[in-house]
Amino acid sequence: MASMLLTDYYSTSTTARLLPWGRRHSGLVSLRRFHMGLSYSPTSLRCFAVHSPLTLSSSPVAPTASMGTETSAKVIDGKAVAKQIRDEISVEVSRMKEAIGVTPGLAVILVGDRKDSATYVRNKKKACDNSGINSFQVNLPEDSTEQEVLTIVSGLNNDPSVHGILVQLPLPSHMNEQNVLNAVSIEKDVDGFHPLNIGRLAMRGREPLFIPCTPKGCIELLHRYDIPIQGKRAVVIGRSNIVGMPAALLLQREDATVSIVHSRTKNPEDITRQADIIISAVGKPNMVRESWIKPGAVIIDVGINPVDDPNSPRGYRLVGDVCYEEACKVASAVTPVPGGVGPMTIAMLLQNTFISAKREHNFQ
Amino acid sequence: MASMLLTDYYSTSTTARLLPWGRRHSGLVSLRRFHMGLSYSPTSLRCFAVHSPLTLSSSPVAPTASMGTETSAKVIDGKAVAKQIRDEISVEVSRMKEAIGVTPGLAVILVGDRKDSATYVRNKKKACDNSGINSFQVNLPEDSTEQEVLTIVSGLNNDPSVHGILVQLPLPSHMNEQNVLNAVSIEKDVDGFHPLNIGRLAMRGREPLFIPCTPKGCIELLHRYDIPIQGKRAVVIGRSNIVGMPAALLLQREDATVSIVHSRTKNPEDITRQADIIISAVGKPNMVRESWIKPGAVIIDVGINPVDDPNSPRGYRLVGDVCYEEACKVASAVTPVPGGVGPMTIAMLLQNTFISAKREHNFQ
Repeated sequence: MASMLLTDYYSTSTTARLLPWGRRHSGLVSLRRFHMGLSYSPTSLRCFAVHSPLTLSSSPVAPTASMGTETSAKVIDGKAVAKQIRDEISVEVSRMKEAIGVTPGLAVILVGDRKDSATYVRNKKKACDNSGINSFQVNLPEDSTEQEVLTIVSGLNNDPSVHGILVQLPLPSHMNEQNVLNAVSIEKDVDGFHPLNIGRLAMRGREPLFIPCTPKGCIELLHRYDIPIQGKRAVVIGRSNIVGMPAALLLQREDATVSIVHSRTKNPEDITRQADIIISAVGKPNMVRESWIKPGAVIIDVGINPVDDPNSPRGYRLVGDVCYEEACKVASAVTPVPGGVGPMTIAMLLQNTFISAKREHNFQ
Repeated sequence: MASMLLTDYYSTSTTARLLPWGRRHSGLVSLRRFHMGLSYSPTSLRCFAVHSPLTLSSSPVAPTASMGTETSAKVIDGKAVAKQIRDEISVEVSRMKEAIGVTPGLAVILVGDRKDSATYVRNKKKACDNSGINSFQVNLPEDSTEQEVLTIVSGLNNDPSVHGILVQLPLPSHMNEQNVLNAVSIEKDVDGFHPLNIGRLAMRGREPLFIPCTPKGCIELLHRYDIPIQGKRAVVIGRSNIVGMPAALLLQREDATVSIVHSRTKNPEDITRQADIIISAVGKPNMVRESWIKPGAVIIDVGINPVDDPNSPRGYRLVGDVCYEEACKVASAVTPVPGGVGPMTIAMLLQNTFISAKREHNFQ
């Protein structure tokens, strides 16, 4: 069961492409330098993810409370919301095809033969297929030159059938990732990581072309569950370029009062306990405990941390940054891991690809 | 005296060009929608800026405590620091001229005949002259077309003797400011407001070409007074594109734990009172009172708010966002208004222009 959930998570995550499989206890590689100086070790944790309460209502916008005796939090069912969004995209893609004869297209460039990368690329292709989006895959050998990759990117930039381009990371170490990523046309940067996009995200009165997929998925979950953001205190734990920082910018765009907690924060527990909304994207298993959580807070847990588990067929299981069992006691709503934010990421990738095609063809 | 200080402030501020003179009680135009729902009116304020304690040590890096019986805060002397920086720039500019025969150049485009704009432009020219930086001024009539302005911008973009370009705002209402500003080459955008710059400012591992002048000046004051930032709680009041947001990004780059308080924040006083460092850029006279300030906090007051004062020759005087008299009692250090952040802005503009010339000519 654990391995199924695991596979399911990775099938629906672009964040995951940044998580080389060998790295245990570190859910977000870009955040792996985060160290809170806390006095626990993963092996001594008594906090376990509880999977049984995750039997959810079929309608994500009218979630049920979990039924455990000690739990009260609503479970934010990212898997169900993501499916709903993918279904909506399918309908819209069909409408576009019928109206103007255009099919959105997503291209993924894979360099080398990493098995994990190949899996992620395959899963993106599957998600595209299911939504009616064309997928294009370019496989290059491990010993390709940076210039060869740049040539491919340039060709895709100029290909009108391609509306989104992803370069599967990590690239081989002899290439400069930033050079390659910067070469992707901003109009096709469906990851939304281009500094021009981030700048527009930060600025009032400006609109980014694309919002990065994982933080966009976090906010979308809040919206779909009718969780108010305006005027709320929000704490984002972690300040990575791919999740924490853009999540904070998005929350602020929606008029939350935002604080960012990070590795240099001296009293993360005290600050986090003030939050009405917590988004944790730090890659530390079960770091956020009950004492960090204000009663009634809403928790979006982006962390995906493998921890040793001899009872699992694979020898590990996945937990979030937040101690799920404890969070269920005090929070008003919480995302499970897996099945929370993870499935939203690829749904947002499909959405960004569709948005790109709409914009390119001025389709309403 | 007040009018002298006023003139002095405007002679050293690029923020001020965004403050049409008729707008009273609103120090930062971009923030004028800010309303905290507080129960005071400017006319009932008992908080007055006290100018007498501002007799400062001649060395800004070894500031004296003010001597009033009720005050304990160090006064952060922006005027003295700005002069020191301008002197440093003069030396560097001379060195550049001697070494490679290049003089940094700043171009300012002025459209129309607003007296306040003309004053700001004149003062920038004067500051350039004093630092040995070439200044170029282009005056266009009020009824110029947007295309005519764009043609001028394009010419300056291509002029190798120009290293920085400022478009004096506001432009006449028949022009699209964003179109004109976007036309300025990012390599010459010494204001640092281009979204690409802001994006790089927000992202870890990226470096902006230019840091916006006023927030850069705020951080420079902290540095010059050896005020530690790393690990400190910082609250930025106001989230404007030109001050609050980039100030928050800069503080975070230096490892502060940052919260942004704004018009939708429900308990700004409570949050602000947690801060070790407060940067206020909101345009509300004397909004931040003693009860908002943690004992020992450092306060950087960006607000410049004219309030009625029949005793002043001009009928008004300038106060900050922070009640200076009360802040002096509880803070460990505080910037006065005027004479705090204001003078730093143009010093940073000169610095950005010099940085641009250095980069262009690969001068170390």
